[in-house]
Amino acid sequence: MARLPIYFRCLAELRDRNVRIVSSGDIAAAAGIKASQFRKDLSYFGEFGIQGLGYPVADLLKRISSIMKLDRRRRVVLLGAGNLGSALGNFPGFARWGFDIVHIFDSAPQKVGTDINGLEVQSIASLPRELDVELGVLAVPSEAAQECAELLTRSGVKAILNFTGRSLVAPTGTVIRNVNLTHELAILAYDLSGEPDLSPPPTDHDNS
Amino acid sequence: MARLPIYFRCLAELRDRNVRIVSSGDIAAAAGIKASQFRKDLSYFGEFGIQGLGYPVADLLKRISSIMKLDRRRRVVLLGAGNLGSALGNFPGFARWGFDIVHIFDSAPQKVGTDINGLEVQSIASLPRELDVELGVLAVPSEAAQECAELLTRSGVKAILNFTGRSLVAPTGTVIRNVNLTHELAILAYDLSGEPDLSPPPTDHDNS
Repeated sequence: MARLPIYFRCLAELRDRNVRIVSSGDIAAAAGIKASQFRKDLSYFGEFGIQGLGYPVADLLKRISSIMKLDRRRRVVLLGAGNLGSALGNFPGFARWGFDIVHIFDSAPQKVGTDINGLEVQSIASLPRELDVELGVLAVPSEAAQECAELLTRSGVKAILNFTGRSLVAPTGTVIRNVNLTHELAILAYDLSGEPDLSPPPTDHDNS
Repeated sequence: MARLPIYFRCLAELRDRNVRIVSSGDIAAAAGIKASQFRKDLSYFGEFGIQGLGYPVADLLKRISSIMKLDRRRRVVLLGAGNLGSALGNFPGFARWGFDIVHIFDSAPQKVGTDINGLEVQSIASLPRELDVELGVLAVPSEAAQECAELLTRSGVKAILNFTGRSLVAPTGTVIRNVNLTHELAILAYDLSGEPDLSPPPTDHDNS
């Protein structure tokens, strides 16, 4: 069921665009798979199709969210109270999807004690051994990425959303998801540039 | 060549982790495709394999970046000078990959005239009709997303990296890439939770 997050993302976008009904062809195209594969996957989700019409976006998204266990509240710890951390701490979408940031830590003395969205920034030195939070968001400078990831895993965090742009070495069993903003921009630029440039690269031996 | 950005992302992550040589099996696994498909795609990239060893990560990444036309500098306009915009404006990765933020606009009077990474924030009211910039980054509040996207396209922007979490309606030919931070966190939570919960949802008619 590696396709679940893909469906989730497509359906969430459709719902945000106020699309109510979607055909299997449209959702398959958006997800980059075959319509037959989507209809096959749907058999796991229960009865959803409306004959001759399509699939109700909101109901299908609700069912997929439930299968993905996204219909419960989850506690999140945020490391980094700089510009990115502040943006994430104030991001309204998180709470709407059940993600509650319950701790924010930073190492800079001038950040500690300040307030982000009603939550006091704590000193990273006070990060306890057992935090009872499974999800961590890493928004620290890239030089501090690995050290901070280790602090998170040591305090019990099992999954890290990594915004630092630096790859992390984590203990087996820890889930890392990288959001690399530069790669996103690079892929956008490629999408814009259209046809790939497959002309052979110049070689040192090319005398022609 | 829809797989190019996937290879690009995998190879960039490998290089960041200081991996020098990668096997076709490893890269295929990371990209979620078959090794045979990767080897077939490689035939477009030129001769890269080292018999019995694998593929040199840096050279292959360089070639793919060249095919994706990422080996040139590109001008970027940023809309939004709040926390997220400030973070993006200060992000060192962009310039390293050839992306130069050349304009930052915001609507808030208290932002206009301030400085982000050496660039003065301009009033969005002064956004010219012809900006001569193809790439835009949208980091404004979600309520302003659509209006700001229209301002960007009207001034000549052809591709938008959208951080607002709001889906955009854009003119035909405009490329939109959504970075939805909530979806990233949701997919991370699902990756962590492991097995999907396929138990049937409760129904109103369930008397068993």
